[in-house]
Amino acid sequence: MATGFVFHELYMWHNTWNFAQVFPPSLTIQPGEHAENPETKRRMRNLIEVSGLLDHLVQLKPRYATDDEIARFHTREHIADIKAKSDAGYGDASLLTPLGKGSYEIALLAAGGAIVAMDAVLDGKVKNAYALIRPPGHHATSTTGMGFCLFGNAVVAIEHARAVRGIKRVATVDWDVHHGNGTQSAYIADPDVLTISLHQDNLFPPASGGLAENGTGKGEGYNINIPLPPGSGNGAYIAAFERVVMPALKRFKPELIVVPSGFDGSGVDPLGRQMVS
Amino acid sequence: MATGFVFHELYMWHNTWNFAQVFPPSLTIQPGEHAENPETKRRMRNLIEVSGLLDHLVQLKPRYATDDEIARFHTREHIADIKAKSDAGYGDASLLTPLGKGSYEIALLAAGGAIVAMDAVLDGKVKNAYALIRPPGHHATSTTGMGFCLFGNAVVAIEHARAVRGIKRVATVDWDVHHGNGTQSAYIADPDVLTISLHQDNLFPPASGGLAENGTGKGEGYNINIPLPPGSGNGAYIAAFERVVMPALKRFKPELIVVPSGFDGSGVDPLGRQMVS
Amino acid sequence: MATGFVFHELYMWHNTWNFAQVFPPSLTIQPGEHAENPETKRRMRNLIEVSGLLDHLVQLKPRYATDDEIARFHTREHIADIKAKSDAGYGDASLLTPLGKGSYEIALLAAGGAIVAMDAVLDGKVKNAYALIRPPGHHATSTTGMGFCLFGNAVVAIEHARAVRGIKRVATVDWDVHHGNGTQSAYIADPDVLTISLHQDNLFPPASGGLAENGTGKGEGYNINIPLPPGSGNGAYIAAFERVVMPALKRFKPELIVVPSGFDGSGVDPLGRQMVS
Amino acid sequence: MATGFVFHELYMWHNTWNFAQVFPPSLTIQPGEHAENPETKRRMRNLIEVSGLLDHLVQLKPRYATDDEIARFHTREHIADIKAKSDAGYGDASLLTPLGKGSYEIALLAAGGAIVAMDAVLDGKVKNAYALIRPPGHHATSTTGMGFCLFGNAVVAIEHARAVRGIKRVATVDWDVHHGNGTQSAYIADPDVLTISLHQDNLFPPASGGLAENGTGKGEGYNINIPLPPGSGNGAYIAAFERVVMPALKRFKPELIVVPSGFDGSGVDPLGRQMVS
Repeated sequence: MATGFVFHELYMWHNTWNFAQVFPPSLTIQPGEHAENPETKRRMRNLIEVSGLLDHLVQLKPRYATDDEIARFHTREHIADIKAKSDAGYGDASLLTPLGKGSYEIALLAAGGAIVAMDAVLDGKVKNAYALIRPPGHHATSTTGMGFCLFGNAVVAIEHARAVRGIKRVATVDWDVHHGNGTQSAYIADPDVLTISLHQDNLFPPASGGLAENGTGKGEGYNINIPLPPGSGNGAYIAAFERVVMPALKRFKPELIVVPSGFDGSGVDPLGRQMVS
Repeated sequence: MATGFVFHELYMWHNTWNFAQVFPPSLTIQPGEHAENPETKRRMRNLIEVSGLLDHLVQLKPRYATDDEIARFHTREHIADIKAKSDAGYGDASLLTPLGKGSYEIALLAAGGAIVAMDAVLDGKVKNAYALIRPPGHHATSTTGMGFCLFGNAVVAIEHARAVRGIKRVATVDWDVHHGNGTQSAYIADPDVLTISLHQDNLFPPASGGLAENGTGKGEGYNINIPLPPGSGNGAYIAAFERVVMPALKRFKPELIVVPSGFDGSGVDPLGRQMVS
Repeated sequence: MATGFVFHELYMWHNTWNFAQVFPPSLTIQPGEHAENPETKRRMRNLIEVSGLLDHLVQLKPRYATDDEIARFHTREHIADIKAKSDAGYGDASLLTPLGKGSYEIALLAAGGAIVAMDAVLDGKVKNAYALIRPPGHHATSTTGMGFCLFGNAVVAIEHARAVRGIKRVATVDWDVHHGNGTQSAYIADPDVLTISLHQDNLFPPASGGLAENGTGKGEGYNINIPLPPGSGNGAYIAAFERVVMPALKRFKPELIVVPSGFDGSGVDPLGRQMVS
Repeated sequence: MATGFVFHELYMWHNTWNFAQVFPPSLTIQPGEHAENPETKRRMRNLIEVSGLLDHLVQLKPRYATDDEIARFHTREHIADIKAKSDAGYGDASLLTPLGKGSYEIALLAAGGAIVAMDAVLDGKVKNAYALIRPPGHHATSTTGMGFCLFGNAVVAIEHARAVRGIKRVATVDWDVHHGNGTQSAYIADPDVLTISLHQDNLFPPASGGLAENGTGKGEGYNINIPLPPGSGNGAYIAAFERVVMPALKRFKPELIVVPSGFDGSGVDPLGRQMVS
């Protein structure tokens, strides 16, 4: 069975402006391209086409998520705040998270793309699916954007699966080089969603993603952080998967696995210091 | 006697973001480089250095204009508005005029650069001076930014010359392809400042810069608009100078001539349709 | 019946480098983006997707043209020259026409895209088709590249239609702002292909595309140049179509019409001075 | 006594094109900005101006080095090869080292800038000097360019000091994250020039810069490589300086110290994996 692929050009039009690489930009730093800019993701999409891989994928057309779908995770106040800044054409969803004209609609299309990918899998249309969407989501909490993220795409998709599709048990495996704090915050006390995050120790957000954050209340034991030291490479990641991730997944027996799939553990990523190839 | 040259790298850091070329940017237009971006002016500055011309110029170091100097033309409300948006790091000084972190300070440095150029001439230090400054100024009125302009650099410099240096009669010759409406607005009723603008007929601002706008009250006859049809080239400009600009200047006998010197009458400028080489 | 659409990301990877806008680049001009760069065409493709138009088009997948198909128009020497420069990763197909690694293969995919579009029409699969391909073709002659063009895509497609599909009579209507000299050169003596070019008078190539170039030998009368003065707008183009192009087409009765469709007659194109909206 | 500063806009016009980040570029990698592009060095120069530091520096105007000065290190064949490729407007000085129109002249200006900096120090005009020049030099050997380098700027300057200024003993301390193989090659058998290179172990060139490369013949002991593991940070560099570099310099007693000063040991450099702040 095939793999699904979600992409839309509009994802590339989420405008993160030309900030200085240092945040927030100041008068003493020359403005330049934002680290989370369209070209990195466009380049991935393009390689998928030019390599011929695209011919083997089932292209899935994203739809806009509704405010009600977003509100399964986020507060109405947060949604309204993003919409207002997007309509104004300027704003910061919080430190580090600039947005522009239409970013609200594009963020709805990103979350909707995650939902479409999930539905395609649940419908048996594809075996699995990759949603190459933008803006990203794993840092966003219920009340705020953060770290380039506006809405928590993975959480919105999971809540859709639980509310509409009858799914009970979900696991997330977040291998982005930064801590998946937003996803963690959604399920910290929930034993039905196992959240696992591999990330560079104490990179972003600061002081987030430590081993001790292992769940609260009934959710205790259902949040697993694997903070890796800078310089960790393929070996460290493979070991973490073999010794922690896979056993935990086997024990938890999720119906669905969602992977917030940042590629910034790569040895050539400028914002991380890992050496994965 | 030599020619002075005002430039500062900070002028290049005025952040006009990456807007769509269509204003205001919308969700249906892909974001791209703003038309008034640093590279066009940096390229001019660089050509001055690489050609060797820089060795023949007297480099003048700009200073920040004070709020009081700006306030000789602009309202305190307008100054506060620019400062607030600049401090926030986002904003639009009015339709078409985005600004970023520090744009207020950079705009003060632009106006101050015009003052420094004027003082160098008045001090006899140089015969004339070229201020390659940014953001531009000729569309800004006393109460608002407009058309990429925040503060009216030429007006601020002229008001400095009149208030501090004892200058009585000034002429402006604005050959930017767009109408110098801001400069005109400052002196429309003032017989002591002759304002002349050559521009493409009805380009920007719309319905501005017609022949009939020739001054009001005592200023009648002291504002000259020369709207040129699209496609006008060197011949038309030379004729306009020989038949209108030069006779008017000779008759007016200004102590100083200020030239808002936009190069967008060029045959390769994307926002105008003139053919000057 | 629907309209076909040919596009491939690989068209965007034809590398025209970062030349100075002045050709050939010299030490005294700062390098910058080549005028014929991917972003202009990518932007068109993107707008087609984001506007929703793409949902109404039949996407046609291009194939690589073979050397034999290219050789219906071009000499083997020219093909070998392009391939050698492409393999080297550097070169100029002639003045103004830089190419990079893989440009030979991409040029084959461009010509093949034109063939695919034509076949789709001839097969009745679509009513008409738009091939958004790169590099362009209408300046290339049988023996040389020119003006950003490597292979004559339209000519190669027409020769395919005549050699393989039994088509006898073809007309071309080239509304690119520059003269379609390559297409003209292919059919200047051929009464079976009516070539019409609307272009800015004496823009590029210099001294090419005059009224007197109206065909030679049996082809006399079957080449029509419509050189328009700088500043021509919608009215001039409509008049040219109503008074010249349409009557000529009606009289010639082509089985197929091929449109080398440059958009640089636009009022905001930097290399032309027309004012079409 | 002050510090000298060498910079020229022409350094920024050395055209490294828009290659894929993977070398050599292939058809399957989308072209993009070369890693050694003008903006990184322009940004440093700009920060020096905007921070106010420039006001405290003695600006030194570079001159072009002569072919004879270059030939103190490089073969005439290498010089002719660079000139031919530069005149052609295309070429690769060897794997990874693209060059463009005028790169030969710009490389002469880079080497000449290093000479000017050295002369200013030797003349007692400044205490020390920083030459922010481009293209870089430390990988170039006598017979070939390499790793973005055309001519060995440091070696050419040192040979100038020895041939013209009567300097006997020179030390180089190369803290670029890559091995200074070109500088090492010039002095591997020379006891009068102590060459020290701190670099990431086995990064570039591959299998170059090991501990065992400690000099040959009379030069034995006068070449010191300090290969540091990926992930080394400020502590490792400070330790290397305290325990190896400083003792070696104190013992060698050079009249001059030349520092090939790459900043790519920085924790945010994409081509290295060190963590210096």
